Amino acid sequence: MTLHYQAPLQDIEFIFSELLNNAKLDQLPRFAEVTPDLVMAMISEGAKLCEQELFLCYAEGDQVGCLYNPGDKSVETPPSFKQAYQRYVTAGWNGVTLDEAYGGQALPHLVGFVMEELSCATNLAFSAYPGLTGGAINCISAHASETLKQHYLPPMAEGKWSGTMCLTEPQCGTDLGLIKTKATPSNDSDQFRITGTKIWITSGEHDLTDNIIHLVLAKLPNAPASTKGISLFLVPKQLPDGSRNGVSCGGVEHKMGLNGSATCVMNFEDAIGWLVGPPHGGLRCMFTMMNNARLMVGLQGLGLAETAYQTALTFAKERLQSRAITGAKFPELPADPIIVHPDVRRMLLRQKVMNEGNRALAYWVGVEIDISEYHPDKAERQQANDFIQLMTPVVKAFLTDEGSLCCNLALQTLGGAGYTKDWGIEQLVRDVRITRIYEGTNGIQALDLVGRKLPLYQGRLFAVLLTKINQLIEPYTDSPHFAQQQQTINQLKETTQWLAINGSKDPEQAAAVATPYLRLVALVCLGALWLKMAALAKQSLRQDTFQKDFYQAKIKSAHFFFSKVLPEVEFLCTDIHSGKTSLMDFELDEF
Amino acid sequence: MTLHYQAPLQDIEFIFSELLNNAKLDQLPRFAEVTPDLVMAMISEGAKLCEQELFLCYAEGDQVGCLYNPGDKSVETPPSFKQAYQRYVTAGWNGVTLDEAYGGQALPHLVGFVMEELSCATNLAFSAYPGLTGGAINCISAHASETLKQHYLPPMAEGKWSGTMCLTEPQCGTDLGLIKTKATPSNDSDQFRITGTKIWITSGEHDLTDNIIHLVLAKLPNAPASTKGISLFLVPKQLPDGSRNGVSCGGVEHKMGLNGSATCVMNFEDAIGWLVGPPHGGLRCMFTMMNNARLMVGLQGLGLAETAYQTALTFAKERLQSRAITGAKFPELPADPIIVHPDVRRMLLRQKVMNEGNRALAYWVGVEIDISEYHPDKAERQQANDFIQLMTPVVKAFLTDEGSLCCNLALQTLGGAGYTKDWGIEQLVRDVRITRIYEGTNGIQALDLVGRKLPLYQGRLFAVLLTKINQLIEPYTDSPHFAQQQQTINQLKETTQWLAINGSKDPEQAAAVATPYLRLVALVCLGALWLKMAALAKQSLRQDTFQKDFYQAKIKSAHFFFSKVLPEVEFLCTDIHSGKTSLMDFELDEF
Repeated sequence: MTLHYQAPLQDIEFIFSELLNNAKLDQLPRFAEVTPDLVMAMISEGAKLCEQELFLCYAEGDQVGCLYNPGDKSVETPPSFKQAYQRYVTAGWNGVTLDEAYGGQALPHLVGFVMEELSCATNLAFSAYPGLTGGAINCISAHASETLKQHYLPPMAEGKWSGTMCLTEPQCGTDLGLIKTKATPSNDSDQFRITGTKIWITSGEHDLTDNIIHLVLAKLPNAPASTKGISLFLVPKQLPDGSRNGVSCGGVEHKMGLNGSATCVMNFEDAIGWLVGPPHGGLRCMFTMMNNARLMVGLQGLGLAETAYQTALTFAKERLQSRAITGAKFPELPADPIIVHPDVRRMLLRQKVMNEGNRALAYWVGVEIDISEYHPDKAERQQANDFIQLMTPVVKAFLTDEGSLCCNLALQTLGGAGYTKDWGIEQLVRDVRITRIYEGTNGIQALDLVGRKLPLYQGRLFAVLLTKINQLIEPYTDSPHFAQQQQTINQLKETTQWLAINGSKDPEQAAAVATPYLRLVALVCLGALWLKMAALAKQSLRQDTFQKDFYQAKIKSAHFFFSKVLPEVEFLCTDIHSGKTSLMDFELDEF
Repeated sequence: MTLHYQAPLQDIEFIFSELLNNAKLDQLPRFAEVTPDLVMAMISEGAKLCEQELFLCYAEGDQVGCLYNPGDKSVETPPSFKQAYQRYVTAGWNGVTLDEAYGGQALPHLVGFVMEELSCATNLAFSAYPGLTGGAINCISAHASETLKQHYLPPMAEGKWSGTMCLTEPQCGTDLGLIKTKATPSNDSDQFRITGTKIWITSGEHDLTDNIIHLVLAKLPNAPASTKGISLFLVPKQLPDGSRNGVSCGGVEHKMGLNGSATCVMNFEDAIGWLVGPPHGGLRCMFTMMNNARLMVGLQGLGLAETAYQTALTFAKERLQSRAITGAKFPELPADPIIVHPDVRRMLLRQKVMNEGNRALAYWVGVEIDISEYHPDKAERQQANDFIQLMTPVVKAFLTDEGSLCCNLALQTLGGAGYTKDWGIEQLVRDVRITRIYEGTNGIQALDLVGRKLPLYQGRLFAVLLTKINQLIEPYTDSPHFAQQQQTINQLKETTQWLAINGSKDPEQAAAVATPYLRLVALVCLGALWLKMAALAKQSLRQDTFQKDFYQAKIKSAHFFFSKVLPEVEFLCTDIHSGKTSLMDFELDEF
């Protein structure tokens, strides 16, 4: 009666080496010495850490939670997190992609990307501590002065210090133009004084590190209204001279889940901080962190769904209940294991097929991060960047919506046992729920896709997507799924056209259907990925292989996907073409 | 920062009096004196009780939960439940539909049916106590000997005693053929001795009543194997002579939600019990209780979704964030309330339209209960019974799946606030989750529909459904939705035909698509109901009415439903026609 998890290394290697051609690593001079084997070896080491350390303190994190002490305003994390944290940072994961000059390992983002899936699959709450630090490292590394980098990055990479991002305030979450936190320049130094209250600050205060480095959005005096007047500041809990800065925790939130992660109210009272990036240019800098973080949140949804699936599968193979509809499969047992029942298989396979498809989707995008930063060819970098920009909201929203759905399907597979705390699935359902909300709700992701990304550069990003989708499928015109996939691509094109025309005439038309449109994009991408994965599996089966089960399952899974998942496209297109219908006609009293 | 709820009396009256012609009450001699006005007055009284008593202890029930005392094996319910329980039973709700001869009020089932929605909307955990008692009253009333009825029904109707149903054992939930609890007849009396362990027994032990009457499934010596050898026994906690029976609670479950409801392990050790119904005929008797309970569980899903919607709506009207996409709607405020945003409206309206549609669906079925029992015409009784039998799994599964989905949409509408415990929405999400599982998982409901109900009497039940759907829409051929609705009815017919042919050849084909088929049935019914509701609203608007908002909203809501909800039918039909595809081809190692 416990959660089950083994890192899906075989699937990851298949995606990385067969589906995505080793992520073009051989074209990136920065990684001349990083072979695909080295990448897989690193991931394999990371997997052990997750399975053996992080996973073991997952349940305790939920039960014990984070304790706030109003006396000294400290926050105590679950006891078992301390050792896990030491093991995690000792292995060097905090600085895995950071330049060696600042104490990092300068490995591909891909490695950190995969580690995000594995660490969140095994302990989402724990992963928030290094996760936020990683985001802060990226942001400081990209935008802070050399002095700040020299001082702050090495201890953060080492794990002695951690990081946060401080955006939300009581009156503003999505709409950061309403920020009230103030930053006042000093007359005689590069220091600023920061005053204000931030809420929902993940890892805002805790006892895992000696210092916590806050990246804080605030307004300079006379800043322009709206998001154009927001600046970004680095505000450490402990100042360089060792004294305590004017930053304190006012309490921790009580939440549906993610109890081991400290979600803090943070009070800044005349706290000393340093500007990161240009004045009034803070939001752009923060988005370096946010965009990457959004992709990572997608992986969180996937990771939890994988653990849920493996647990449901274990249960379905063990739980004996009723006989198979066509007659006993295990007559020697008092009943058959429930995996013999078609409806149970339907639930399990939906999870399996979505998880594997979503993994392919996330990594298809994720491998482009290194290309967008390090490819010697500018056109390649731009294309990779276009693709990432367009697909970030899709990966974030779709993988977390589906992650939530699949965790719920896993719970359902367990029936009453799933609803008790014994099996731990209910914790996954509660924990995964936040992923649809934080780093921008999924509704905001859809609006980002439709309202910002699609119109950018006259639709250039969407053209890149179409090219990449076609590249996936064009060698496989003989696939049994080719015609269906071609049709859905055409539906996506038509629908995007409809959106471009009607959305430019009336932006409410686009905003009203942003959510189903994002889903449509995701499903069409999944179709192309499943088509290619099945075709590759077929090729491999023609050769001698030790992994027959794996490849046969890929072909059968593709069949399931094209029969029972992809046809949702029809429904989505009808929904989208109906536009805003009566949505905006309801008066406030008519709701 | 709290949940909002007002009983939707206007909608209930609209459904009852306009949509469903006052439930044919005037045709039922038993209710000669029960006017529609009296029914609404009763419901209105019940609504006050729910809003004013039950709702106030909803959060406490979650926080405090049920405490098990291993010393005396007692269970303490949340303190605030005691007063609420007294008010509830004093108002006579326990025996509302029971014959007057046993202390009941002999009111239509419809009244109890509506009260289930309202009481669960305001406090699901609390409602489990009287809810199980109500089920036990129905079962005893239908199947027990006159002596047992005389002794047990009056104190149960009065609320001094409560009831349970004891089915599940560690090794069996869905598959009751595996039951191990034994019943041994005594030589010299009508008593039996019951020994065994039952788990997940709702209200199995608690401190709200002096006595608890357990209805227990057990096997007589030499009983046939399978479900054909199960008998039903009445086993009181306290025996008629005042002594304690051999029944004790071994502990309470720790669950995802529903903490105020005691879910008990019950140990029967040589406990004295009396047979209810014939030997080996226990499952049939228990299903009297179960079928009614399944409809009630559907209402639970609806009830919680209504509270979630009202709370999300309140939040969306208050929370200021960003400006409307077409320009500020409330320029005097720092930002517009989020209800101006199309994507927020999309979430809210999905909830509203599903809740109102599902209420119509549930009551469309629920009003037939009284007709099936009390109509003087046998053909009418049979038709009503056919309809209820077919639709019980549909109402149970669809309303709880959608209830869960809508509670999650409500949480999403609140964003980060929804994930904290402050607003209470997360409690609704946790609580509603069990409704998809208990009283038979929703997968089991779908199999019941497809495997048992459809083939019954050569498809007679389905023919009744089609007749009733056509009756709803045939006066409204001029409806703007008529053609679309006709088309979905045809799709339902074709798909049912496909299922009948392919399912009889290969039962796996039917079992593999039972879940989407159940959903298809529900959506086609909702289409007919929304079509008629919009048509009625249009008629009412032509007359002078004080309720313009209400009727206008109905028309706009129907428009939303036909544009954005009903088109899912396309998807479902494609899924169903693909049958079992590769589902059964996966070897165990290929999952």
